[in-house]
Amino acid sequence: MPAYKSIEWLEDQKALRLLDQTKIPAELKYVTLSRVEDIAAAITDMVVRGAPAIGVTAAYGLAVAAWQEESDLLSATMTRVADADAILRASRPTAVNLCWALDQMHNRVARQQPTSLVAYRAALVDAAHALAREDVEINKAIGHAALDIVPQEATFIHHCNTGGIATVDYGTALGIIRIAHEAGRKVHVYVDETRPRLQGGRLTSWELQQLGISHQIIVDGASGFVMKNKSVDMCVVGCDRVAMNGDVANKIGTYNLALVAKAHGVPFFVAAPISTIDPEMPSGDQIEIEERPASEITEIDGVKVAPEGAEVFNPAFDVTPAHLISGIITEKGIIYPPFDETLKTLFLSNEQDHE
Amino acid sequence: MPAYKSIEWLEDQKALRLLDQTKIPAELKYVTLSRVEDIAAAITDMVVRGAPAIGVTAAYGLAVAAWQEESDLLSATMTRVADADAILRASRPTAVNLCWALDQMHNRVARQQPTSLVAYRAALVDAAHALAREDVEINKAIGHAALDIVPQEATFIHHCNTGGIATVDYGTALGIIRIAHEAGRKVHVYVDETRPRLQGGRLTSWELQQLGISHQIIVDGASGFVMKNKSVDMCVVGCDRVAMNGDVANKIGTYNLALVAKAHGVPFFVAAPISTIDPEMPSGDQIEIEERPASEITEIDGVKVAPEGAEVFNPAFDVTPAHLISGIITEKGIIYPPFDETLKTLFLSNEQDHE
Repeated sequence: MPAYKSIEWLEDQKALRLLDQTKIPAELKYVTLSRVEDIAAAITDMVVRGAPAIGVTAAYGLAVAAWQEESDLLSATMTRVADADAILRASRPTAVNLCWALDQMHNRVARQQPTSLVAYRAALVDAAHALAREDVEINKAIGHAALDIVPQEATFIHHCNTGGIATVDYGTALGIIRIAHEAGRKVHVYVDETRPRLQGGRLTSWELQQLGISHQIIVDGASGFVMKNKSVDMCVVGCDRVAMNGDVANKIGTYNLALVAKAHGVPFFVAAPISTIDPEMPSGDQIEIEERPASEITEIDGVKVAPEGAEVFNPAFDVTPAHLISGIITEKGIIYPPFDETLKTLFLSNEQDHE
Repeated sequence: MPAYKSIEWLEDQKALRLLDQTKIPAELKYVTLSRVEDIAAAITDMVVRGAPAIGVTAAYGLAVAAWQEESDLLSATMTRVADADAILRASRPTAVNLCWALDQMHNRVARQQPTSLVAYRAALVDAAHALAREDVEINKAIGHAALDIVPQEATFIHHCNTGGIATVDYGTALGIIRIAHEAGRKVHVYVDETRPRLQGGRLTSWELQQLGISHQIIVDGASGFVMKNKSVDMCVVGCDRVAMNGDVANKIGTYNLALVAKAHGVPFFVAAPISTIDPEMPSGDQIEIEERPASEITEIDGVKVAPEGAEVFNPAFDVTPAHLISGIITEKGIIYPPFDETLKTLFLSNEQDHE
């Protein structure tokens, strides 16, 4: 059981405590945030990262905003929360379940019909707690669904970080690996270091160390060499957004890994909570891809690794087309191509469950 | 005209001056080496890197060894040089033209039949000078050969560093880009940063800056995104060894780039001095792949980017199979598939030229 928590609500302070992911693996440091502007900045600056973790953080961001308002008026507080919603929604553009989590918050709070400030604030905190709890349940369900396709001895390639710190606990793609390990499968993971921010080398390897799971870090360019010369059973990645045709937006480098996997006949699986499926997005072509600062490539922890004034192109995500994806592993089971049909079916059945 | 020299013989000191490539782009620093052990260490530690630069450095290494011997006896000096040859040959295992350059030295010196120590030492220095001169001529010839396939407006993806500092001057794949630029072609280069040692981000971008050539650094995992969303005319890479079936050993990440290029229909060209073609190597499967220290991945300029004790798999090279390669650009022109035939023809005609 890992001795860290990615996201924790501090009831006595009406504040959110986040594990500072920019400091791992050097130190286990937490930040306590009691202003929504600081929470949005923590998302933008990737103090907290990982689509599910961002969603739950934003959810608690609304609760924080409700306590930030000093007027003690319900209407003013609701306006404050609406403003906070806009600030949080703009903090990262690509992950859909940031927006999904905020929508969930509004729906769940509205269902409570709070008529007092006390009730409104409590409803916000309760809704955020519920989303956090559900995230762990969803991740466990994804991991258990995947047990069907994980062999007794399983070698994975994993990209970016999708573990307990990218979520509330367990993780999505890394949750699959963790649950396979807990189920007694003999697991080895090649960990794409995942430039530019090295979430694999810094975070995934650190989480796998904590969990005692065998692994080796590789540079992203070595995945083809590994697939050709080692026995790799599957690639598993998370995602920031799934379009209705099965195209998947995820961390830059995912598309290359999927192409390389296809060329080697290595199955390529995407772990996706249903909240990352975007019913408004017909295909991956329309997904907005965040470009991040040049310094992510030219500097590493303040050390310059490119010439002064170097020009950079730094898209944070790419889109992997559906035809490269073997299956999408959700909390409702694994779905297979043709994704334009199976995603629609999944999505409709999931909506019915929640009606 | 760049204001730096990768390799320079200091006649007055009987020593070799190398541009310290581990310090670029932070500083332009040279090291002066007058012991063959230090030259071998400079190759191993990648103070000097790039297959052609390594070859010429090793060639001068024999000259340095001939002056290192203090006995003033021809026979003792020849033994010293033979010992130096073994030390240099072991300094990096994958690049074939390290061995090729040493063989050339012995052949050329033998042709002089030096009968005195003075003549022997002079023959070694002259032979190394000749190899250095020829390297520049070869690179220029490669660049001119490539003009046939470079369009008027050309966008490249380039991997690792293959420029003036990886050679004596001009470079191989980067020489193609430089000569196209000098010929008035409108050139833009996406520069793979090339983990783990970041030769692209540190060295190639620095050389392109000096030359005033438009470019942007990308992470290695972004090449698919770039090919899909930008107009890329071709990938160009160098190589450390070409097998007789056209398989190419080059910096780790080359194979992934070639797979990604194939998937996008982007031509993939390899710049190869004929000295990198290994007539003893029937296919890429037999090429020894150097594994380098874990610290290349876990540390960047002394900054830790992975947890303490992290396990790493760090192959320095990979093999790109012939079927992914559009053409091999040599100083004798561009050769095309089927490489098992065209390489044999090229190799035989080249040997006849030198008889």
